[in-house]
Amino acid sequence: MNTDHNCIFCKIVAGQIPSRKAYEDDEFLAFHDIAPWAPVHVLVIPKDHIPTLADTDPSQHAGMLGRMLALAPRLAKEQGAHNGFRTVINTGSDGGQEVYHLHMHVIGGPRPWAKG
Amino acid sequence: MNTDHNCIFCKIVAGQIPSRKAYEDDEFLAFHDIAPWAPVHVLVIPKDHIPTLADTDPSQHAGMLGRMLALAPRLAKEQGAHNGFRTVINTGSDGGQEVYHLHMHVIGGPRPWAKG
Repeated sequence: MNTDHNCIFCKIVAGQIPSRKAYEDDEFLAFHDIAPWAPVHVLVIPKDHIPTLADTDPSQHAGMLGRMLALAPRLAKEQGAHNGFRTVINTGSDGGQEVYHLHMHVIGGPRPWAKG
Repeated sequence: MNTDHNCIFCKIVAGQIPSRKAYEDDEFLAFHDIAPWAPVHVLVIPKDHIPTLADTDPSQHAGMLGRMLALAPRLAKEQGAHNGFRTVINTGSDGGQEVYHLHMHVIGGPRPWAKG
């Protein structure tokens, strides 16, 4: 597994920075965003350090990406977003990515919070 | 393959409604959104009619979901979003889903268009 010792999300995976966990298995960690946009706002990350979605290779990473995306409905439901949710992955500067460790936002709960 | 004859995206897959295609293979179709939010705004859909991400099953659909997500960097680059992009899947009413056929927005190009 790749780890970047300067990466805040790798430090969360390693337990060096605390987080409020929502889910964990061997491959993924999900934790509550510290600056939520909505009543439910969880980040799902692969434990493996991959900087961005653009750094993935379809032949190598499609399985991981699918398992990550397939976690979203389960997490949204567990966290109380019963009437829907949004999954967002920001990639690169024009995509608004802030932390360069691949992460998926799972956002939900009663509106208004959705933008567009 | 599941098809819903009342679904606008199934009609696009069948060629009954025209679209400006960006990509097509046996499993997926990508086409330009008719009301783009950004210079690049492509929708990627599985040809199979699955209403929402919440209707997917991890054991059955993770492979398809991963292949769909892995298409995003390629399509963003091909469409000229060289400095980043955003992938969004809206699920259910609180998620702001408008067409009930699973679809992923790939949004990019020079800002400002990103919200949040």
